[in-house]
Order: sequence, then structure tokens, then C-alpha cells
Amino acid sequence: MSNLIDPKSISKTELEVGEIFAPRFDEHGLILAVVTDAESDAILMAAYMNEEALRLTFDTGYVHFFSRSRNSLWKKGESSGELLNFVEMRVDCDQDILQVRATQSGSGAACHTGRKTCFYRAVEKSGDGFAVKDLGINPLFDPKERYSKS
Amino acid sequence: MSNLIDPKSISKTELEVGEIFAPRFDEHGLILAVVTDAESDAILMAAYMNEEALRLTFDTGYVHFFSRSRNSLWKKGESSGELLNFVEMRVDCDQDILQVRATQSGSGAACHTGRKTCFYRAVEKSGDGFAVKDLGINPLFDPKERYSKS
Repeated sequence: MSNLIDPKSISKTELEVGEIFAPRFDEHGLILAVVTDAESDAILMAAYMNEEALRLTFDTGYVHFFSRSRNSLWKKGESSGELLNFVEMRVDCDQDILQVRATQSGSGAACHTGRKTCFYRAVEKSGDGFAVKDLGINPLFDPKERYSKS
Repeated sequence: MSNLIDPKSISKTELEVGEIFAPRFDEHGLILAVVTDAESDAILMAAYMNEEALRLTFDTGYVHFFSRSRNSLWKKGESSGELLNFVEMRVDCDQDILQVRATQSGSGAACHTGRKTCFYRAVEKSGDGFAVKDLGINPLFDPKERYSKS
């Protein structure tokens, strides 16, 4: 049972100012959460939360998501050991995106590739098109080794 | 005509490492772009880009989006004067989210409410539910006055 406020039941002003938390989950019951490093403010990763993941993040102190590919609740770092310690949640003006401020544990890698952040490549013009360029953010662990552990 | 690479035409490894930019636009041809302050790294706002907005961001030096509510190309700050100067674009591991590093112009407000950032409220537990708390990030301009100008 949800006791969150339905965003359709409140005005635009109430959504944008005031004290009502009325997250605008999409048609699948999900909302995007952008995780930032609570110490440096750097963006680390982004994934989706359903209401249960949101509640568990507050109640356990560890960041939880809902995995769309596995269609299940996902405690970030459960298999990799790279847990995210929850610090603070923020919501944007129209309440359709969350910012989750967290500190890193384990090797300090938020990305499944072993890097601190998922945003390890720059997009650059290349002729009429584009290419990506590695920014030199090196992996902190070897994903092949880490994920093959039983 | 698009000369971007179709992400379905390349392997997961090619998507995650290497030099191919193959943004995973959604079924509406849009990809989420999270704008961060190129100086402080703080998250400012998030909106969607289509391929045209992405190209114009590179070609003009100003951040462009596609407005889902207006169903049209949107040069950020065109009506408010709060332009975003494009610095660098990054892409996440599976190429479904962009990070756009930018500097602010005008009053330095990325949010339509006049605040520097759209993420001006914290989500907190309140009884069995949640509430939001204003973080005290004050508006830099009065939206009522700014948007009523002809």
C-alpha cells in the first residue's frame, strides 16, 4: 500500500513549492534517480527506483533501485560489494527526477565496469558524426573477476 | 538524415568501450541529458535531447533540448535569458544517459523557478510517509516578472 501523494491530485504550485512529496513515477511505477558523490558532487550513475526501492533506501541506509532488465528490486552493490551509503535524497522542481547523494564503499566503483563513475567517456565531433573518447578514469576492480565469484 | 550508429548494430562491449558513440534514444527519439555545472560539478537540471538538439548543442555552443510538453526543439534560456554555455558532453556506460557539462549565464539560474538548480528540495521521512524540505536555495530572479515580458 502506498501512502505517497498522487501528483495528479495537487496543483503545479503545490508540486513545485511547499512540503508535499509527490514523485511522478512513470507508467511502470519508476522514477529516475541520479546518484551523486556526497563528497565531491560528481555524478556517479543513474538508475530507476520504484516506491519500494525508495523506501528501502531510507530504511536501510543503502541505495536501492529497481532493475528494469532483471525486473526486480536491486540493492546496489549486492553482488559486486560496491554498496552506496545513502546520505540525502533531493527532488527536482516538477518531481520527476530524484538526486540521491551517497558515499561509496568497496573499491569506490559505482559502475559495473569497475570505474568510479559510469560517465567515463566524452562525446566529441568526428567528421560529420561523433565519437567517444575515454577520459582515463581507470577501473578500480576487474569486473570479469569480481562477477565470476560465486 | 542521421549518421549516428544504431546501438542495436553493435555489441555490448563496443557500446561500453571503444570509440563508437551510439546513443540509445528511446522510442520517441529522446535521450535524457543531465546538466552539471562545469565549475562545481553540481547537478543543475535534467531534460531530454533529440538528435537535432544534440547536434545544435555542439554546433552553437549553447545547450539545446527537446521539450516534451511543447513538442518542439528548445534552446535552453531562449525566453528566460538563462542560457547554458556548452563545455563538454559525456555518456554513461550503456549509452542511455548523457551528462552535459555547462557554465551558466544570465542570472545563473538553470531552473524555471529562478533557482540555480532544479534540485532545491530534500526528501525526508515524515511519519509513515515523506515530505520535502526547502534547502534554502533562493531564486535569482522572479519567474512571474521574467516570463511575463514580451
